[in-house]
Amino acid sequence: MGYSDLDQLAINTIRLLAVDATFKANSGHPGAPMGMAPVAHVLFNKFMNFNPQNPGWANRDRFVLSNGHGCMLQYALLHLFGYKVTMDDLKNFRQVDSITPGHPEAHDTPGIEVTTGPLGQGFANAVGLAMAQAHSAGVFNKPGYNLFDNYTYMFFGDGCAMEGIASEAASMAGHLQLGNLIAIYDDNHISIDGDTKCAFTEDVTKRFEAYGWHTVWVKDGDNDLEAIEAAIKEARAVTDKPSMIRLTTTIGFGSKLQGTGGVHGNPLKADDSEGVKARFGFDPKQSFVVPQQVYDLYHKHAAEGAAKEQEWNQLLQKFGAEYAAEHADLTRRLSGKLPEGWEKSLPVYKSTDAAVASRKLSETVLEKIHDVIPELLSGSADLTGSNNTRWKDAVDFQPPVLGIGNWAGRYIRYGVREHAMAAVMNGLTAYGVNIIPAGGTFLNFVSYAAGAVRLSALSRVRAIHVATHDSIGLGEDGPTHQPIETLAHFRALPNCMVWRPADGNETSAAYYSALTAKHTPSILALTRQNLPQLENSSIEAAIKGAYVAVEDPSATVTLISTGSEVSICIDAAKNLKEKHGVAARVVSVPCFEVFDAQDKAYKLQVLPDNIPILSVEALSTMGWERYSHEQFGLNRFGVSGPYKEVYAKFEFTPEGISKRALATIDFYKGQPVRSPVNRAFQQIL
Amino acid sequence: MGYSDLDQLAINTIRLLAVDATFKANSGHPGAPMGMAPVAHVLFNKFMNFNPQNPGWANRDRFVLSNGHGCMLQYALLHLFGYKVTMDDLKNFRQVDSITPGHPEAHDTPGIEVTTGPLGQGFANAVGLAMAQAHSAGVFNKPGYNLFDNYTYMFFGDGCAMEGIASEAASMAGHLQLGNLIAIYDDNHISIDGDTKCAFTEDVTKRFEAYGWHTVWVKDGDNDLEAIEAAIKEARAVTDKPSMIRLTTTIGFGSKLQGTGGVHGNPLKADDSEGVKARFGFDPKQSFVVPQQVYDLYHKHAAEGAAKEQEWNQLLQKFGAEYAAEHADLTRRLSGKLPEGWEKSLPVYKSTDAAVASRKLSETVLEKIHDVIPELLSGSADLTGSNNTRWKDAVDFQPPVLGIGNWAGRYIRYGVREHAMAAVMNGLTAYGVNIIPAGGTFLNFVSYAAGAVRLSALSRVRAIHVATHDSIGLGEDGPTHQPIETLAHFRALPNCMVWRPADGNETSAAYYSALTAKHTPSILALTRQNLPQLENSSIEAAIKGAYVAVEDPSATVTLISTGSEVSICIDAAKNLKEKHGVAARVVSVPCFEVFDAQDKAYKLQVLPDNIPILSVEALSTMGWERYSHEQFGLNRFGVSGPYKEVYAKFEFTPEGISKRALATIDFYKGQPVRSPVNRAFQQIL
Repeated sequence: MGYSDLDQLAINTIRLLAVDATFKANSGHPGAPMGMAPVAHVLFNKFMNFNPQNPGWANRDRFVLSNGHGCMLQYALLHLFGYKVTMDDLKNFRQVDSITPGHPEAHDTPGIEVTTGPLGQGFANAVGLAMAQAHSAGVFNKPGYNLFDNYTYMFFGDGCAMEGIASEAASMAGHLQLGNLIAIYDDNHISIDGDTKCAFTEDVTKRFEAYGWHTVWVKDGDNDLEAIEAAIKEARAVTDKPSMIRLTTTIGFGSKLQGTGGVHGNPLKADDSEGVKARFGFDPKQSFVVPQQVYDLYHKHAAEGAAKEQEWNQLLQKFGAEYAAEHADLTRRLSGKLPEGWEKSLPVYKSTDAAVASRKLSETVLEKIHDVIPELLSGSADLTGSNNTRWKDAVDFQPPVLGIGNWAGRYIRYGVREHAMAAVMNGLTAYGVNIIPAGGTFLNFVSYAAGAVRLSALSRVRAIHVATHDSIGLGEDGPTHQPIETLAHFRALPNCMVWRPADGNETSAAYYSALTAKHTPSILALTRQNLPQLENSSIEAAIKGAYVAVEDPSATVTLISTGSEVSICIDAAKNLKEKHGVAARVVSVPCFEVFDAQDKAYKLQVLPDNIPILSVEALSTMGWERYSHEQFGLNRFGVSGPYKEVYAKFEFTPEGISKRALATIDFYKGQPVRSPVNRAFQQIL
Repeated sequence: MGYSDLDQLAINTIRLLAVDATFKANSGHPGAPMGMAPVAHVLFNKFMNFNPQNPGWANRDRFVLSNGHGCMLQYALLHLFGYKVTMDDLKNFRQVDSITPGHPEAHDTPGIEVTTGPLGQGFANAVGLAMAQAHSAGVFNKPGYNLFDNYTYMFFGDGCAMEGIASEAASMAGHLQLGNLIAIYDDNHISIDGDTKCAFTEDVTKRFEAYGWHTVWVKDGDNDLEAIEAAIKEARAVTDKPSMIRLTTTIGFGSKLQGTGGVHGNPLKADDSEGVKARFGFDPKQSFVVPQQVYDLYHKHAAEGAAKEQEWNQLLQKFGAEYAAEHADLTRRLSGKLPEGWEKSLPVYKSTDAAVASRKLSETVLEKIHDVIPELLSGSADLTGSNNTRWKDAVDFQPPVLGIGNWAGRYIRYGVREHAMAAVMNGLTAYGVNIIPAGGTFLNFVSYAAGAVRLSALSRVRAIHVATHDSIGLGEDGPTHQPIETLAHFRALPNCMVWRPADGNETSAAYYSALTAKHTPSILALTRQNLPQLENSSIEAAIKGAYVAVEDPSATVTLISTGSEVSICIDAAKNLKEKHGVAARVVSVPCFEVFDAQDKAYKLQVLPDNIPILSVEALSTMGWERYSHEQFGLNRFGVSGPYKEVYAKFEFTPEGISKRALATIDFYKGQPVRSPVNRAFQQIL
């Protein structure tokens, strides 16, 4: 308590940095920073523990700006507290290759925890960060060693509050009783279309209470710093519920247009900007001004944060003396390394082993590796028995008071909330203790999570989507559940590995690749139906993304395929030889992205010149032209029925493939055939 | 009131049809039908008006099964009431090419209003159906002529309740005060992972109250038919709020496994099935049994429904005498035809007209055609000023009591709820009065709505997604908002037209095609930045999906492109000629799907043999191999900055394109070049 003019000066400094940066960029959102500067000041300067010199300190308090368009607020704070965000960076707001892009990007800017902007994502990321804190505490905290007790603070606006993903995440957080999660709702009654009364008139506070959250209302978020402080204190005192502080503010506080949509997404006009400066006691003609006493105030708090990190480091050292094994495990995790030799636990198969669905093969991988990779957290969006994501003795991640699990539990019940699941997974990885989340749903419903999977890729995190029921092979559930466009969609997404393994060794390879790709999410597309173990498959071959499953020096056609269709292609090759006297090669390409990264010599070995290539996959042909001359796929919706009949209807049979292989051979007869591996120029990457 | 043994017999008949059909199919979900048979019986037989002989009667009550996996409930009801769903159809449940697929599909089965199964979709569809009713009433009802006063009933389960899309739609319905919407929540405490206590412990009733819904609780939904009837009566009496009836039931009622997850998604075992039959007084050894008195009971209600339709038809006739113009308009709409000559209102441009952003060109189309197509309902997910979706004198669709619009209003404020928006649009079209919804958001956030867009395509509805800010050309908002994979994603989706117009005429063509495609949704990808009007563009050329924008008989390369990159390609062609003495053709392909449908002769005219083709689009190259030999695109994320600088960074400039065109020419020099239009075999469609 006891706020002075200096506090107000700091708040106005933040506001004006947002005004100046958006004005200079002639682009951006001044309104939210101007409205939320008071709460940001109180929160960062009175409550949050962090060390700008080491943004990665494991027990720092986390801050997420879910209304990411307001990022000048965050950039201003980072600069003022002494993170490596310079005044020049602020002046470069929204410029090409700056570290101050139009929305916060975690990998670009020191102090940004997660990439936000697409509304609702940050809300769910924060739930993931709070879960990671609770889990880390459950695993590592010991009496006298509260190694993980940080808070996760998150700002969100009306836009986030309207998004379904935030509803899903809020329901989940309420169920999980995440006491260290504090969300501050910028209740400014303005969204892009103007007054929220045109579309959003629900009782947000009551809704959060329905989810099981503690709620507080600060009626004057523009001026009442004491009330803001009291609300945060109250929220921190509630340990068995997440808290939502409804903070009524005036968007664009200080502008002529304050309280209107006019100040949401457009810079202030020159005269308005000057007027705000005058009103706040600043020189109207100067820009990017920070009074020294504001730097001093914030640097003092930053120094206190650095001291807290020192204390924590000493605690960690002491912990090491008492709990050597746990300490070793924790420091390994903090280093971002997987345990030495973990990959020896991956199952390996012989071609004589039984046919098994790849969702079951995935289960076997999880069963074998969960002991050696203790930071692997599995889960499912309410499809556990179908996704096969749960190892036998798994303990649920649950508040202990529910009696069905504990904080150290490693199996997450996400509920039927695919979008929140994927965003929570992003939050879990962002916590920085090497957590590797694996979340299950049907491949078709990864589409519900597209917004969050996209941010996994953009923010370069290791999240594993266990996507079962990966084609018409799921059978009776029918076209509402049978993916067609889904693999093309995610293969087109940069920095996302889409794996569709054909057997046990390929499934192990997919996990190997997914677990070792520290900066890339993976989607593992897995079958419901059984798949035979292939003759020439191995982990070593499959981790190249593609390999020759059947070689034949006299081949006049190459069949290239993935997953459940590879073994049908192998049967087609037999059929071609026996019935038509035609020799065929078969290539399995479980992962496009990984194959693309191989050298050209290897790629030409897999897909040589002078042999026409036919692709076979029971989904959209889109994208297959990159590896083949002709494409056999499904560019229509599937049908409901027993899967073998569905496959037969669409001719994904040895005969159906043979027919098209013969047509391909015929079509290229007498033509020179260049492998599609050859390209005229390189792509920009 | 006054329920007899016959009611119970009817209920048990429904239950056993679900048991038998799932048993015979060895697949499916008996639990929900067994639990919800009582409420279905009361609702369908006591309240709902419908005529099985004419499932399209405009003022029928609508029923939506949002928990679509329970579709045997619906199929059984349709059969028993006399829709064209035979006992053989029930016996063919979940078989290839049956009209009783694993989840309800609107276009396949008489009496199914919307395609459901992906959880939460039906919930939002029902909100759309109720909005369509309110709107139709607002437009056509007159004193003494309540032409549109039907109810929309919807069942949903815990799964739907957890999905964000249902939260979004529920918030919207509460805001809109949709009094004729009644949702019945199957509160059975079971989802696939077992007891909902593991993931879903919120207070659902309180949440719906927060949204502004009226709520009722029926504590014994298994047996208390009177309470069910009273609850529905109460809900119908509330006219200024949607109602949610929490109906506590026992999943799989009657089974040995009732009340457990074991009966959710698996058929009953033989002994269990027999036991249920015995318990219900049926012969344990017989299957698919319907007592004649059950048929009689339901057929009597169906006959009453047919009589009500007759009354309505007479009312409509009388309405015609008094309101001739309105009657003519309504009958036209019901016939599914657009007004004669509407297309004359589409704007046409000359190449000398000013450069304009295609989002503005889209606005001009809406401005010009909204008067002639009164069933066009525009809207935006809170991006009205950015999407340019609102014509100047538009009236908002709002409850009149709010004072900001009325029921006849044609501009929908969807809020920041992209997923619900798309699903509500599906519901609006499904109402059957020719409503054409156009809903705006950024192209990147159509991905949030992917689940619903997919169902637009599968259920063959005319919905128009106005998707602005369609590339890195949006500039400063940066990679979180710049689509890369999005066009590939939706181009891979069957029965979905993706338009990316290059100028004014192409934008008009996109609207022409979208508005006349009665069974196909469209995504219009539109720019933020200005585009020049092209020399050779015309509506006639563009509605073929692709056309030659620059012809040159001496061309040694074809540049094929879309949208904002077409005019850069035209400049590149000039650059090639002037700087390198190389002649180039330019092809604009605003819509792949429409071009694919042209005859081969036309396609070869656009993309002739013997000239190598380079594609240019500032998004993922995925899919472009279908029309080109080499691809220039963006297979990485964009950056935040002024758009011209972003374009320059990635070399989407005349020089950058020229460089790659020269590389393409060089690469194919001396090689025979076959147009990709030639294929070895036809795709299965």
